[in-house]
Order: sequence, then C-alpha cells, then structure tokens
Amino acid sequence: MNIFQKALLLNPKKRGFHLITAEILHAFPQIREIKAGICQIFIQHTSASLTINENADPTVRKDFEMFFNKAVPEDDPDYQHDYEGSDDMPAHLKASLLGSSVMIPIKNGKFALGIWQGVYLCEHRDFGGERSLMLTAWGE
Amino acid sequence: MNIFQKALLLNPKKRGFHLITAEILHAFPQIREIKAGICQIFIQHTSASLTINENADPTVRKDFEMFFNKAVPEDDPDYQHDYEGSDDMPAHLKASLLGSSVMIPIKNGKFALGIWQGVYLCEHRDFGGERSLMLTAWGE
Amino acid sequence: MNIFQKALLLNPKKRGFHLITAEILHAFPQIREIKAGICQIFIQHTSASLTINENADPTVRKDFEMFFNKAVPEDDPDYQHDYEGSDDMPAHLKASLLGSSVMIPIKNGKFALGIWQGVYLCEHRDFGGERSLMLTAWGE
Repeated sequence: MNIFQKALLLNPKKRGFHLITAEILHAFPQIREIKAGICQIFIQHTSASLTINENADPTVRKDFEMFFNKAVPEDDPDYQHDYEGSDDMPAHLKASLLGSSVMIPIKNGKFALGIWQGVYLCEHRDFGGERSLMLTAWGE
Repeated sequence: MNIFQKALLLNPKKRGFHLITAEILHAFPQIREIKAGICQIFIQHTSASLTINENADPTVRKDFEMFFNKAVPEDDPDYQHDYEGSDDMPAHLKASLLGSSVMIPIKNGKFALGIWQGVYLCEHRDFGGERSLMLTAWGE
Repeated sequence: MNIFQKALLLNPKKRGFHLITAEILHAFPQIREIKAGICQIFIQHTSASLTINENADPTVRKDFEMFFNKAVPEDDPDYQHDYEGSDDMPAHLKASLLGSSVMIPIKNGKFALGIWQGVYLCEHRDFGGERSLMLTAWGE
C-alpha cells in the first residue's frame, strides 16, 4: 500500500456549485499509480463544501444553489451568529449539510465514478476567496 | 495493510429506504480477513444514495421517505432541470443531502457498527433500476 | 502503512452541538506517528452524529441547534415511528443529514484542518447518554 498527499489551492469562485473533477485529476497525477484504492478530497473551510452529483447539465448546479438558498434562509432573526454578513451562518449550515469531504474509489488508475458523477465545489459565500483542499490517495 | 475491492450490482428497488447491510457482507467476504480497518461503500449514481441509520423498526425507513419528500419538494416551479420527470431533480438533491458513500470501521472481521445501525440504500427515483456499488476495504 | 484503532466513550452531553476535537486528539496519540494519512471518527449510534464546522464562536453551535430543530420538526403527525418520544424520529433524520462519520487528513502528526475547523458531536436526543466512538487512523 502506498499513500500520496497533496495540497491544492483553488482560485476564487462565485457563489454556487462548480465542477472540479478535471482540476483534481490534473493536480494529483499519483492517482494513476493506484490499481485499487481511495482518494479523499477534503476542504479546509467551514463556509464551503464538497459533494458528488450530476456532471452534465449545468442547470442541475443552478437548481442546487436555488434549493439550498430556500432550505437554509438568510437573515433568520433567530440566528445569533450574524455579524459576518447575511451569507455567513447559512454558509456554515450548508457546509455541514453537504460535508467537508468526498471519498472516491480508485480503480486501475482512475476515479471509479458513475458516468454521470462529478465532484462539486460548493461555494456558499458571496466572496469566498481562494479555497484550500487537501488531497489524499492510498492503495496498491 | 491489504486492500480489497469489489463491484456489486443491486437489483432494482422501489422508491424508498432499504436495509442492505446483510447483502453487502454476503457479497464481500474479504471483510472477515481484516482485524482493524475500514470498508467504504460507494454508489455510482446521482439519484440514489447511502446512509447509516436504525436497522430494526421499518417505520423509521417509511418516515425517512416521508420526511425527504417534504424537505425536497417535487415540481418546484423554480427548478430549471425538469425534463426527466418530477422525481429527478429532487433525487439529485436528496442524493447530496445524504451522500454517495458510507465508511464503516472493521474490527475483528466484522463491521464495528452500533447494535441499532444498518446501511440504507436510498432509492430516490420512481424507477431507478439496478444500482452499482463499489466496495473497498483496507486494513491489517 | 500502519493502522491504529481505538474505541472512545464520551460522557453524556446535553442536546446540541459540542466541540470534541481536543478530546479526540488526547485519546488517540497514535495520530502523532503518522506523517501522511487519514483519521476516521465514527459514531456507533443512530440518534447522534458528527460534523466539522466553526470552532471559535459558540453562537454558531447554538444556531446549528436552532436551525436543525426548525428543519426537522418534532411531533409531525405524519411520523409513524413516534413511540420513543418527540425527539426520537427527528434525531434519526438529523443523524443522516449530518452523517455518522468524519474523515480528517493527517499531515506531520497533526489533523490537517483549516484554522477555523473543529469536530462537533451532534447530540440530537434530550437524554442521549454516553456515546461510543470508534477512531481509526492509517498512513505512513
């Protein structure tokens, strides 16, 4: 068993859901050396998150943004943590609903994703800035 | 450390939440060879998902179906991705709320689950068809 | 590659969200022996969960409790599984929304968390009692 680890800094992205599968594979060529294993992608922030979903139709990503804005409202008067802006506390909640990491099986040097699956960076802040990922892959 | 990997195709299941713990253990006997490790169960689809929850009372699984149908409504006029049917966009959203994988510790050749925990296949489509899982386990 | 595994029993905590990062690091010093790896924290229950979020302002954890109580109501007359109390079925649903494990990269013997990230124990029951975790870490 081998293990590889690499930090990856993503350029700032606008609020919403963004496909980053290709960027990860490009940044982490060690995946190709693993015949059977796992890759973890971890985001080192509490107001952005990661998920796996449909990689083809961009309206799916738009509907994700619409849905999560309805499900986690801004400016709820019951929020106590409100001094960092209307988008801040909802961003924390969305981050935990979606999660701070995804784990993808590796088979024969490639992500063993379904044909419609891709990795989303979920940017929940209006101006989130750069986002730091930690990529870790292990296997034989 | 050893690593094992196996694809598992599940028969079509009706929309709802289904216990699949026994089916996974049966399909993946290599788990018994691991004294301390982890098993990942990954679903290669974007309209079905996996979670861990109560394994005894079937009404819990019925309440899951009821709750997620309320929390993620069908036919929201704000959906842009609506041409694959009323159940399609909600299925994508439910899949990301619940997640595309579960990770279970292995101890002495068995899943180190709590006594009430089981693995659910969460089928979010009306006619989802067969579902492909990738099982990966590693440890000593 | 090495793998370490340890059970950890947490004292009863009141309903809500609690930072447990320091308690985990204290209980599992083997993390310091790993230069590059992963730690999984798994909770062996279906009415409590784990997530990663903001580690500084305690009002964030209060807002988590407020939000999840609104998002997953008690005493919905549509619940069929209602004989264990008003907090029971909502606890199962919250546990699956948040998840039963978190996976944290390890770098140079430390959790490679962002500076604002901490591990939350999410206690969804009014009287949840002690909670059993299984800690597993692997790497080189």
